Amino acid sequence: MDSYIKNLEWRYATKKYDPSRKISAEDLQTLKDAVRLSVSSMGLQPYKVVIVDNPEVRAELKAAAFNQSGIVDASHVFVFANETNVGQQHVDAYLDNIVRTREVSKESLSPFANSMSNFINSQTEEGRQFWTAKQAYLAMASLINAAAMLKIDATPMEGFSKEEFNRILGLDKLGLNAAVVATVGYRHPDDQFQYNKKVRKPHNELFITI
Amino acid sequence: MDSYIKNLEWRYATKKYDPSRKISAEDLQTLKDAVRLSVSSMGLQPYKVVIVDNPEVRAELKAAAFNQSGIVDASHVFVFANETNVGQQHVDAYLDNIVRTREVSKESLSPFANSMSNFINSQTEEGRQFWTAKQAYLAMASLINAAAMLKIDATPMEGFSKEEFNRILGLDKLGLNAAVVATVGYRHPDDQFQYNKKVRKPHNELFITI
Repeated sequence: MDSYIKNLEWRYATKKYDPSRKISAEDLQTLKDAVRLSVSSMGLQPYKVVIVDNPEVRAELKAAAFNQSGIVDASHVFVFANETNVGQQHVDAYLDNIVRTREVSKESLSPFANSMSNFINSQTEEGRQFWTAKQAYLAMASLINAAAMLKIDATPMEGFSKEEFNRILGLDKLGLNAAVVATVGYRHPDDQFQYNKKVRKPHNELFITI
Repeated sequence: MDSYIKNLEWRYATKKYDPSRKISAEDLQTLKDAVRLSVSSMGLQPYKVVIVDNPEVRAELKAAAFNQSGIVDASHVFVFANETNVGQQHVDAYLDNIVRTREVSKESLSPFANSMSNFINSQTEEGRQFWTAKQAYLAMASLINAAAMLKIDATPMEGFSKEEFNRILGLDKLGLNAAVVATVGYRHPDDQFQYNKKVRKPHNELFITI
């Protein structure tokens, strides 16, 4: 467990990537597994994760992200896109998955199904979008933590035009919205930020114990 | 890394805890370290984390959380509370921390300070709350992932009255709002949910590769 914390201390928001280094297929699979296993409310996973490798698309995305070089120089770009209109069709697809995976009857899931539907229906459209975006953030954190364990560098990014990302990646048409982005790859030896001491609130400012 | 993914597969949203088992002081410290090291936008950590051990307070919280037994039977309750009015005072405290930690001048941080202030000032009050809540979710995911590595069970919870949690924990007065909760402890052998197969979207539904 010491190594877990040490790896979290090792990581930092990489500003400059080594463009010559790509993540191995095996490591990419592990990162995807970790994202797939992320917690989400009720297990619904109301988002998709777009993994962008294509250089032309990434050049377009870079222009829509204040020209942050990591968008093109990192190994891969992960775009966490939340459902903009989560509803009964997502609940039904999830229930079908539970039925398939656990070999249970759909009827046996009725109480759970109803509580999901009731929750979703009780929200405003804006509330639903806020809710699905928060779930996408959980998945992004799962990527960042897993990357650190593999000694893969990563950079969470909120500084991008959602409208432009949605247009470039065709997310609008899929009922999705780019909530948050993370680049993954390997730090460039010239990135001075890697030598900065990590700054975090002291325990006594961050935690309140009752 | 196999063990990392295996631990994520091992975890599940525990419904019934063994009330006789408490997390060790050492493990609690590790969980806090992992939360403290969580990513957050610009590193600002615009939240506090309330760790509730007190049984009377937990009984009150349980009533405000649809009587979910984990609130009292788990070892500890973590409440992730986002800043409701993040502003210049938080930016200044963060800058002071950077100055102390990295032994740099405050002047050298001006461009970063300005970009933070500009971002915060460009948001509506509601937008700021949404933004700080999302950061609190990242910290919660960091707790869940770290707990899995320690084979500590955990349950993320959104099903609670924020108003009641804020009142019971005195968060209003601190400018905080209970965004999301997680209980941590040890599963009860009787919790049937631990025997369910994990349900997640298949890779081809969750990921889009471009």
